[in-house]
Amino acid sequence: MKTALIQQRFYGTKEATVQATLSKIREAVQQDAELIVLQELHQTEYFCQSEDTKFFTYANDFEADVNYWSEVAREHNIVLVTSLFEKRTAGLYHNTAVVFEKNGAVAGKYRKMHIPDDPGFYEKFYFTPGDLGFEPIQTSVGKLGVLVCWDQWYPEAARIMMLKGAEILIYPTAIGWFEEDPEEEKQRQLDAWMTIQRSHAIANTVPVISCNRVGFEADNTGIMPGIRFWGNSFICGVQGEILTQANDSDEQILYAEIAHERTKEVRDIWPFLRDRRIEKYNCLLKRYCD
Amino acid sequence: MKTALIQQRFYGTKEATVQATLSKIREAVQQDAELIVLQELHQTEYFCQSEDTKFFTYANDFEADVNYWSEVAREHNIVLVTSLFEKRTAGLYHNTAVVFEKNGAVAGKYRKMHIPDDPGFYEKFYFTPGDLGFEPIQTSVGKLGVLVCWDQWYPEAARIMMLKGAEILIYPTAIGWFEEDPEEEKQRQLDAWMTIQRSHAIANTVPVISCNRVGFEADNTGIMPGIRFWGNSFICGVQGEILTQANDSDEQILYAEIAHERTKEVRDIWPFLRDRRIEKYNCLLKRYCD
Repeated sequence: MKTALIQQRFYGTKEATVQATLSKIREAVQQDAELIVLQELHQTEYFCQSEDTKFFTYANDFEADVNYWSEVAREHNIVLVTSLFEKRTAGLYHNTAVVFEKNGAVAGKYRKMHIPDDPGFYEKFYFTPGDLGFEPIQTSVGKLGVLVCWDQWYPEAARIMMLKGAEILIYPTAIGWFEEDPEEEKQRQLDAWMTIQRSHAIANTVPVISCNRVGFEADNTGIMPGIRFWGNSFICGVQGEILTQANDSDEQILYAEIAHERTKEVRDIWPFLRDRRIEKYNCLLKRYCD
Repeated sequence: MKTALIQQRFYGTKEATVQATLSKIREAVQQDAELIVLQELHQTEYFCQSEDTKFFTYANDFEADVNYWSEVAREHNIVLVTSLFEKRTAGLYHNTAVVFEKNGAVAGKYRKMHIPDDPGFYEKFYFTPGDLGFEPIQTSVGKLGVLVCWDQWYPEAARIMMLKGAEILIYPTAIGWFEEDPEEEKQRQLDAWMTIQRSHAIANTVPVISCNRVGFEADNTGIMPGIRFWGNSFICGVQGEILTQANDSDEQILYAEIAHERTKEVRDIWPFLRDRRIEKYNCLLKRYCD
């Protein structure tokens, strides 16, 4: 199964950004991609650099957005993983990945469960933590364990998706550097981000697709220094081996063949599932075991 | 706090191997190491390449071994992490890490919880799965989350140790290659092993010390092709960054300064603990969520 991810920048407006995404989807379809993954909140800038109620208007279009991307999936006959800003009612919003089947049907959605909040990433202002749990989404190209950005730091999320049958883990994400950080710190952050996601492939013997944005985006309030999204989107196999990886500066479409058979081959000889000590894992359900 | 690990080979007999270990401990002590970590089952060959009842005799000396390493810790005024073959009674054995305080007292022990069993690593024949749970061991150099080898593939084990207050994760281990595997497969295995352990540092914001054996050991039955233990012992910091790493062929002593303050610094800005969705983690306590 040929999969693609689209690492791109923000084009200044939603309209221009969506047009750019569309043209890249067309390109990926010409390369026979059956599954296409977009980055976190791919329609707009990463607006969580400041807390401003004006950005909630982006979520007003959630239903129209769903209809739009449904049509894109149908027209191109692809399974499409999108990342949208969902309004459920006034004052109740989610960071929601919507997955479309090849016929345009909504295959399922995932509401980001772990919500970050640190300087420049003020997501707790915008997003109510997801209430759908960790449920993989059945599609014609496999059962997809879709998680979003901050979720990637939580082995629990990846594990649960796998235990519920996910065949691929998918992370739309938006993460980057502050320019003023020293180079070594930037390198540690990027390495940590790659390593933790590759580890989910290894621990769970599933491929991982991680799609990050790229390019510099200013904070519109001018308070924060802006974020240079570090790209480095990648697809890795079930032993965490990198199949393809983007650089930290350019828009890129990455492709990889995902062979579901490899999961069984590796699990048979590295049978981690066999030996979990579930009767001794109670502490995992506690905040802290003091 | 200066820590050291000793990556070594098997010297043909327990006596010769222990003498070699002792001389390396003396060297590490001269370099002012306060915490010294030894590899898995460091007194003998990795005997689990075959299932042979004769090897149970190694466990008869467990109490004598404990007394011996206690005296080594006391004499050198070090916290010492050993990995021993424990006989509890006839027919009941464990793969047990015993940690000694600087005064020679037993600070605590950990019985390997996840027991592997695959061709050449027939541990389920020898070791009853641990019944002490995942309990960090308090010492004068910090609270040590000691886990053993196969445990390293389980994010659950690392997480629980951290949730119980472990300040360092420590993995005595014995893992290697079969010579006949293709180079790419060997590289994938080694990378996966490094990556999963570094990920425990990242997910839990704790340093990790992993001490592996090195050198070729034949299967004494001649049935299996023998194992080339791949060394590559390492110590990494709380973002998974490698502080020091051994090669795949030589005996080496590795040193690193562990700065516990760094844990707080990184956790304050990467507050993974804050956002765990514990009310949605029930599936982790199940064998499989079908």
